[in-house]
Order: sequence, then structure tokens, then C-alpha cells
Amino acid sequence: MLQTLIDYISRFITIEEEEIKLIESLFQAKSYPKGSYFLQEGAVSKEVGFLIEGLVTYCIEGDDLHLYNFGVENNFVCNYESFLTKTPSSKSIKCVEKTVMLCISYENLQVLYNRVSEGQKMGRLISEELFLQATVDITSFYVDTPEQRYQKFLAEHPLLNQRLPQYLIASYLKIKPQSLSRIRHRMFKNDFLT
Amino acid sequence: MLQTLIDYISRFITIEEEEIKLIESLFQAKSYPKGSYFLQEGAVSKEVGFLIEGLVTYCIEGDDLHLYNFGVENNFVCNYESFLTKTPSSKSIKCVEKTVMLCISYENLQVLYNRVSEGQKMGRLISEELFLQATVDITSFYVDTPEQRYQKFLAEHPLLNQRLPQYLIASYLKIKPQSLSRIRHRMFKNDFLT
Repeated sequence: MLQTLIDYISRFITIEEEEIKLIESLFQAKSYPKGSYFLQEGAVSKEVGFLIEGLVTYCIEGDDLHLYNFGVENNFVCNYESFLTKTPSSKSIKCVEKTVMLCISYENLQVLYNRVSEGQKMGRLISEELFLQATVDITSFYVDTPEQRYQKFLAEHPLLNQRLPQYLIASYLKIKPQSLSRIRHRMFKNDFLT
Repeated sequence: MLQTLIDYISRFITIEEEEIKLIESLFQAKSYPKGSYFLQEGAVSKEVGFLIEGLVTYCIEGDDLHLYNFGVENNFVCNYESFLTKTPSSKSIKCVEKTVMLCISYENLQVLYNRVSEGQKMGRLISEELFLQATVDITSFYVDTPEQRYQKFLAEHPLLNQRLPQYLIASYLKIKPQSLSRIRHRMFKNDFLT
């Protein structure tokens, strides 16, 4: 399990043998049952999780449920707004499947940044990657139709179409479940004809 | 002009006197006439600009014009997707006013990261801030009405309402100019009555 994390970090920086031991000591494996919360609205986000197995959704739960992001294997999971500013989260992070994560506290993350020789660089590169993905998501809202967004979703996460309930995929696409059904029907019909 | 940049960087890290000299040597002041491009669609983004004076818009110019972000004083300006991956930009960055920036090349930015003792940390903290803002923008799409987005825009950038043409503000809010007129009319009427 820890090797997956070390492999991920090694994509960004070079880590020495003794640094691997330090990194391992800073994370703690945690298991979350299906349907449980990694972070509840109103609580302060105190950990970043590296998702080993499972699936989480990032939601805003008001009068309506808005699913605005999700987290899959080999990704960090966190509401960084709450985590970095130490303020109550206005969003929740829920485990759609039984989920296993390696978790690191705010304090231990600072240790990682400061005691691993390229720790800050790792933090910069991961933050840059998160920012780039967020920019892609924002611009997609401006230029893509819901159908194009669904096609991109399928292309980027082919397995999620089975793992996430359709009403949550519709929420992520910001359309009604009936509209998603119509899009799926149209796409299936076209596939069938070509 | 350089002092503004040093003040900005000092919000994130501690810099020594000789590091200030190094930072100053890595940036170059550039002036862009009103209406000119800082980055044109199709070109590779080769510089990050720190905006000293002026106003830029981030646009996708296809059949329709989509303004998805803007840059004001005391902010870095860049299409990071193109800059970091060294691929042609699918967006453009245009100067709506005469704009003055301190520009740093990709190569000089790596020098800054590696030769300023807290350079990587600065990069991490600025990337985190950019990512947090992008997350706020994404979630606003899900939960806010166009009227609420306009109110937030006015609250966060009170002067931009005068500096940006209304059709560009409408594009940023992802509504038609006529809809923005109606929102403004309704808000003005309410202000007048209360």
C-alpha cells in the first residue's frame, strides 16, 4: 500500500531511502465504509488522504445535492480550502464505495515539506497539477455542451460510469437525470447505427 | 515597480537581501498597448507576467467568445497549461487596458525556484492559492445563480464593473448581455427602493 504512495511521489521528486522511511511514518492507513464521510460539512478538514482503493465524491449538500468533483485511486483527497485555512468546510467528501486511504495530518504534511529535501518542490508540482485540472474543468463549463462533458467524462474515467450512480453523474454534469438519460439514449442509438 | 513584486513575494516567504537582487535580475518589465495580446491562441506560453498596472482577460475565441477569467494588479498572469507543458495555447490572454507587467521566462522561473532558498515553497504557496481560487470558481458554477455570481463579482472587484465592457462581464457570467442588463436593472431598482 505504501509502495503505491512512494511510486506516486517519485513521479514528482527523487526521494532517498531514509526519506521513504520518514514519509511512511507520517501517513496512517484508514478504512472508510461505503456511505461514510471522509469529511462532513461544518467540520474542519484536518487530513489529506491518498486514495488507495475506493471512490469518493465532493458534494455541496443544500436544498439540492451538487456533486462537483470525485476522487479515485492514486489521487489525493481533501477539501484544501478548509484544510489550508483551518475553517469549517462548506462541502462534504463522501465514500461511495468502501475506501482505503493513507492519511496525513496538517502538521505531518509540514514535516514532509520541510524534512524531505525536495518536499516543497513536490508540494509545488502537485498543487500545479491540481490547479491545471481545475482550469480544464472551468473552461469546459464555458465551451462544452453537457453531451460533450459527458463524452469527456467517459473518455477520462471509463470505469466510473459503472461505479457512480447515474443521478450523481447527472449532478456532476449539472443536468437533470432525465437529460442524462436522453443523452445516453442518443449516444447509444448513434453507436448502434454506425 | 520591482518593490511591488518583492512585497507580493514577501507575503509567502522570507527573502534575503542578495536574493532580492537575484529575483530582480530574473524579471523584465514589459508594456503592452490596449487591445494587444499577452498570449495568442496557438502560441506556446513562454512567460509568466506579474501585473503591475492594467487589466487582462483570459478568453477562448471560437465561434463565440468566452471570457473565463481576468487578471488585475498584483496577480500573476499566465496560461499555466501551455506554460508548464510547453504546448500551444488553446486560449488567449488579451490586454483590455494598457498593461505593464514584470515578466519571467520558464528558464528564469526554474532559477528562482532553485536558487532562492524558499523558492520552491513560494511556488507551492502561490500554486495553492491559484488552486483554491479555481475551486471557488468551480463550485460557484454549481450553486450560484447568474445574479449571485454577478453580486460576488461586484463585491470582489468593485472597480472592474467600470473597467470591463458589459458584454465581457456577461460572457464571464456565462449569460447573454440582455440577461445582464435585466439583472442590473432589477438590482438597481431594488437599491433605489431600499
